[in-house]
Amino acid sequence: MKKIHKVAITGGTHGNELTGVYLINKFKKNPSLVKREHFETFFMHTNIGAMKQCTRYVDKDLNRTFTIAGLNDPSLGSYEDKLAKEINQKIGPKGSQNPNIDFIVDLHSTTSKMGLSLCISTNDKLTWQVAGYLKECMPEVNIFKWEGDTDDIAFVSSIPPSGFTIEVGSIPQGVLRADMFFETEKMIQHVLDFFELYNTDKLKKTYTNIEVYENSKMIDFPRGEDGYINAMVHPTLQENGYFKLTKGSPLFVTLDGEEIFFQNDETLYALFINEAAYYEKGVAMCLAKKKTIQI
Amino acid sequence: MKKIHKVAITGGTHGNELTGVYLINKFKKNPSLVKREHFETFFMHTNIGAMKQCTRYVDKDLNRTFTIAGLNDPSLGSYEDKLAKEINQKIGPKGSQNPNIDFIVDLHSTTSKMGLSLCISTNDKLTWQVAGYLKECMPEVNIFKWEGDTDDIAFVSSIPPSGFTIEVGSIPQGVLRADMFFETEKMIQHVLDFFELYNTDKLKKTYTNIEVYENSKMIDFPRGEDGYINAMVHPTLQENGYFKLTKGSPLFVTLDGEEIFFQNDETLYALFINEAAYYEKGVAMCLAKKKTIQI
Repeated sequence: MKKIHKVAITGGTHGNELTGVYLINKFKKNPSLVKREHFETFFMHTNIGAMKQCTRYVDKDLNRTFTIAGLNDPSLGSYEDKLAKEINQKIGPKGSQNPNIDFIVDLHSTTSKMGLSLCISTNDKLTWQVAGYLKECMPEVNIFKWEGDTDDIAFVSSIPPSGFTIEVGSIPQGVLRADMFFETEKMIQHVLDFFELYNTDKLKKTYTNIEVYENSKMIDFPRGEDGYINAMVHPTLQENGYFKLTKGSPLFVTLDGEEIFFQNDETLYALFINEAAYYEKGVAMCLAKKKTIQI
Repeated sequence: MKKIHKVAITGGTHGNELTGVYLINKFKKNPSLVKREHFETFFMHTNIGAMKQCTRYVDKDLNRTFTIAGLNDPSLGSYEDKLAKEINQKIGPKGSQNPNIDFIVDLHSTTSKMGLSLCISTNDKLTWQVAGYLKECMPEVNIFKWEGDTDDIAFVSSIPPSGFTIEVGSIPQGVLRADMFFETEKMIQHVLDFFELYNTDKLKKTYTNIEVYENSKMIDFPRGEDGYINAMVHPTLQENGYFKLTKGSPLFVTLDGEEIFFQNDETLYALFINEAAYYEKGVAMCLAKKKTIQI
């Protein structure tokens, strides 16, 4: 079994998601918190320009900028395109089987009531073992399995072959919530503990199956020709993280108060409900299938 | 009694506070919703530049730009300074006893759990009568009475002599919440109903006293020399709108988990707890005295 040499914790990929920004601040002040005997922990703020403005990004979403195609395209010169190339040198390079970092945890928050969630966009076996361990330590953690339309995933967490994104919420953009801050820190500590056990051959078991929400499709708000939305997330869904939708479930309510219902015959779960940053992406929520997968 | 001729409803003063933005959209599509027989209702988006970016402001906070001194200073040329002068021509001019608008309701939202709140920064008798009526219709409405350091108030709602700000929350920036949207609309309808009764001499009573939270001081987060905060709002306060603080109440918790307590002998109430936009203003919460005032 190949040992793990270096684990990266990254925060501030979105400059207005303060949980990650401040956890990295905390580790900078006291690196011993994330130090382990049998591997090195590396941590960094990824998007300092956006952090300074307290905005999601400067020119474009850094967490959609790590495709191999984009990283190799010298014509892309926005702030985040340049930044992605720099980060790729530190943490990647992407596509390498021998990257500088063996595992990455990228820290995010969401205005959606997702509680403690992992977003995993790889089938990498090590990543799923970490997820299995983490869910055993903290059963309240939910896992969103992202199967993109393409193999060329654009997330920060996709730079090395192993890693995931932590999403916690609901937290408004530009706000630090103490409860979620400490819960996210707990998740990081468990991840680091996993690798200490892993490197010293002390892991007690191999995880074989795990419950996930696998993405099926994104749906947008009903919109007018002016681009403005005509309907809002239905109040029934607002305070929920992983909301079960069956045919006839309320979904939206128009500005005039008319309810719009879920028409699908298949039961799906709504995730990332009413995430502020997705309004401009044309996403009101993600729909997912709940299933147990073999890992 | 002088009749009311024109009431203004303004939204989008902060471009990422969508409740007001979309209520104005709704009224634009169906003006009859805010039409009354005995006065004219005027509604507008105040900061379209910030709305397009979905940011609080373009150059500076429009809701801190309506001082008489600033409006009369031709050297101030930022986007919001220019905008303030234009809006002042439509709704004011400020300082006039005969402004174009008799009463203004400016619509805001906050990431703080303020529920349905009015912010009132004037001693104007008519304004307080409307507040009394509204609180009678909707007892869940709380009133924050703002006594500034100066008479030259800078809020949009200070342009004509009569008016107030509606603040609803918690709502993340860039998010529309259906429940708060409809509750805010109800508040507006009651305000318009008041003026219809007022203009037709059908008001049944005069309000003589009212419970308010009167601002005492603002307090900042504990911060390091780098400007970053060292402590977060204590979880006990996080989900509260008007939180009673007595000596020894928890106030903050440091990133390391150490609790910081309220040291004041006088009982005060915390408002605007953990409002995202106030981090840059150096405000973690406002402290206020709860009292009943004669109106």
